[in-house]
Amino acid sequence: MRRLGDGVEAALHCAVILAALPRNKVLSGRDLAALHGLSESYLLKHLRALTAAAVTEALPGPRGGYRLARRADEISMLDVVEAIDGPGPAYVCREIRQKGDVTTNAPCAYKADCFIKRRMLAAEKLWRDALRSQTLKDLLGDGEVEIGDHNKQAVEEFIGDKQR
Amino acid sequence: MRRLGDGVEAALHCAVILAALPRNKVLSGRDLAALHGLSESYLLKHLRALTAAAVTEALPGPRGGYRLARRADEISMLDVVEAIDGPGPAYVCREIRQKGDVTTNAPCAYKADCFIKRRMLAAEKLWRDALRSQTLKDLLGDGEVEIGDHNKQAVEEFIGDKQR
Repeated sequence: MRRLGDGVEAALHCAVILAALPRNKVLSGRDLAALHGLSESYLLKHLRALTAAAVTEALPGPRGGYRLARRADEISMLDVVEAIDGPGPAYVCREIRQKGDVTTNAPCAYKADCFIKRRMLAAEKLWRDALRSQTLKDLLGDGEVEIGDHNKQAVEEFIGDKQR
Repeated sequence: MRRLGDGVEAALHCAVILAALPRNKVLSGRDLAALHGLSESYLLKHLRALTAAAVTEALPGPRGGYRLARRADEISMLDVVEAIDGPGPAYVCREIRQKGDVTTNAPCAYKADCFIKRRMLAAEKLWRDALRSQTLKDLLGDGEVEIGDHNKQAVEEFIGDKQR
């Protein structure tokens, strides 16, 4: 599999942080960047992609920032990943089975999808379905269990301090 | 998911054709290219990648060509895909959870893999496992059932004529 877009990790981490915000509160791109040790300009590009995909909403102005566009249990990991990398298939069939001068060019000979395409798309459907079945709420639950007390408290204080 | 390498379709189709060759016979890159309507120089790049990954063997010389390096039931679809795109993970975790000045930098706080990484790798494992469980022999079987008589005969004649 090709390496996913560079911003996928940042987008997932930011989405989880936004999922932990109280309703109607926002965090600025600058604060989200500082929390993850990322440059603001780098992160803004990916936050814009999340907003364009309706995963996040951007509130403009000096007191503006980002919040989730839907509830955490209504945003899947796939929503976040596809916001960065797009929803297209990984395997793109260019129908080379029909090319060349050996096989026929009659379209009726190719009514069914190529079996290679079918198997390739079935495999990537497993990946897509798995990510579609997991939401930001599941990730929040992981964090509850897995993040140590020190870090949990540090992030909670940061969010409490920076939210607008 | 990012779009797979451009050569994956060609590599899979060529691998199936080579799986249909009698043992110890080869087909030239030129003939494999002609069969699929591809330029020889384009295809040679991908045939070299298949050979580098020990999916195919290249016999040099004017009567040389390509054959499978193992039996068709010993070469998975994943072997072919990874020959073109590499075996690396799609999701690369750069540990941004440890970056920034909010969370601790103490390594002991990050002994377990990040839960986002775990879920992302588990999803792509489904894709990888699915492709690993399907071999060129399975694709040959598809072809037996699904390719129409005209094309099946045309390809068989081409292979019979061009094999060396």
